[in-house]
Amino acid sequence: MSRIAYVNGRYLPIGAPAVPVEDRGLQFADGIYEVVKVLNGRFCDLDRHLARLERSLAALSIPMPMSRAALAAVMRETLRRNALSTAIVYVQINRGVAPRNHLFPEDVEPSLVVTVRRASLPKPRELAEGVRVITLPDQRWKRCDVKSVSLLANVLAKQKGAEAGCREVWLYDADGLVTEGSSSNAWIVDRDGRLITRPLGPEILGGITRSVILELAQTAGLEVVERPFSVEEAKAAREAFLTSTSSLVLPVTSIDGQPVANGVPGSITLELLARYRNHLQMPE
Amino acid sequence: MSRIAYVNGRYLPIGAPAVPVEDRGLQFADGIYEVVKVLNGRFCDLDRHLARLERSLAALSIPMPMSRAALAAVMRETLRRNALSTAIVYVQINRGVAPRNHLFPEDVEPSLVVTVRRASLPKPRELAEGVRVITLPDQRWKRCDVKSVSLLANVLAKQKGAEAGCREVWLYDADGLVTEGSSSNAWIVDRDGRLITRPLGPEILGGITRSVILELAQTAGLEVVERPFSVEEAKAAREAFLTSTSSLVLPVTSIDGQPVANGVPGSITLELLARYRNHLQMPE
Repeated sequence: MSRIAYVNGRYLPIGAPAVPVEDRGLQFADGIYEVVKVLNGRFCDLDRHLARLERSLAALSIPMPMSRAALAAVMRETLRRNALSTAIVYVQINRGVAPRNHLFPEDVEPSLVVTVRRASLPKPRELAEGVRVITLPDQRWKRCDVKSVSLLANVLAKQKGAEAGCREVWLYDADGLVTEGSSSNAWIVDRDGRLITRPLGPEILGGITRSVILELAQTAGLEVVERPFSVEEAKAAREAFLTSTSSLVLPVTSIDGQPVANGVPGSITLELLARYRNHLQMPE
Repeated sequence: MSRIAYVNGRYLPIGAPAVPVEDRGLQFADGIYEVVKVLNGRFCDLDRHLARLERSLAALSIPMPMSRAALAAVMRETLRRNALSTAIVYVQINRGVAPRNHLFPEDVEPSLVVTVRRASLPKPRELAEGVRVITLPDQRWKRCDVKSVSLLANVLAKQKGAEAGCREVWLYDADGLVTEGSSSNAWIVDRDGRLITRPLGPEILGGITRSVILELAQTAGLEVVERPFSVEEAKAAREAFLTSTSSLVLPVTSIDGQPVANGVPGSITLELLARYRNHLQMPE
């Protein structure tokens, strides 16, 4: 069965011609997106995702194409038509369709696309052994807090990582400080057991999983410090991990080919993963 | 009559559903483009544009979807079907269609879109009086030498310029040095009559008009210095102008609200415009 996509009011086979060529998402990366996890038919942290979606739209002066409730209903219906209960629901909203010109067009309707895929969550082995990352200079634009589809730099970084046999790439700024991963937030635990992650700002996306983990860490009584950390600090850390909607809490056990601590997932990382699974009502 | 677009082997009305939602141009800005000027049915500097298109594709490891000759034939046929003789032909090539994943998919065909619009060349008054620019920090990614559709930062800058009543925005880097405009290259003439423009590098696009103007300037016996210049230098310049396929050689007579020299187009700028028109075999 072909997957089904919602496109501006219609449900179409995923491969069907769908978007006009002058959609600004296609010609200018002038659009935003969200990726929401569905476990056993339940949307995880949907309110947080929709709030962030509205924030991204506001940053670009793109109106919501419909109410939040109507959008959630479209997402549910698209999920239903794809007959999946554990899935990733992708929502993209572009500024609209207009003859090509950089300036915001007047009188356009934003375009809305919703797709659904089987969730590709971390494999047990990845969680047990951790994953490898390399570090690369951050070549992205300066508004990474907006979840835009302007992702070419992320694509190129992630591809380089894969070619080096790594699951993710940690990007660093001109000062050698880690910003985030190509599609995840970056965390370390220092020698004193403090959890460290970069504070919110234009250099990183405010991850939904990041925000949940911050809350769970506080509940767990962990000391959390939101500050930038360097690549060198990461390599000398006691633990390292990454978070994202699809990756959950994923231990990082090698950075640029060097093992993190003794090269196995750390206890605080695994504690946070367990608490996150509990938050998701997700079985082991 | 609706305009006609070429989309992956078919000619469609411009507004028709055309591109599948999982085209990577739409989801990742994973594609490149060219904009070619057509005057009286003649493609201007087509070989240079196609060479740059191949360079952009190579930078992203995207193969050409067809031979250069076949692509030129598609461009000519799309122009013919739009019944225009003075036009802008837009070519976009994306990596292809695949289930959403940052990594380059295997076994995909690049997607090709060609559209045609009436050329919107500078109006006589703009050429006679010059245009105004403001300056803004450059928020784009670090591979602006690749003509990718990752243009959201350019869109936001140009929109801010328009809201300030300006035709273009000159972007400056962390050192206060002008990189280029949001959709054009930036030039000044210093007190000694030297033509100054930023050298090629990852911070700027190698404009086709820029390359032609460099050659015409040498033919004209002008001293040309390819080096970065600061916003302050630009404001103190004797002349300033911008170049692009659509803007030709366009005098800049105001920067951040301050007149450039005496606020009228400079003689070297007008000389280069005349030579460029001659290069294009373009009547006054």
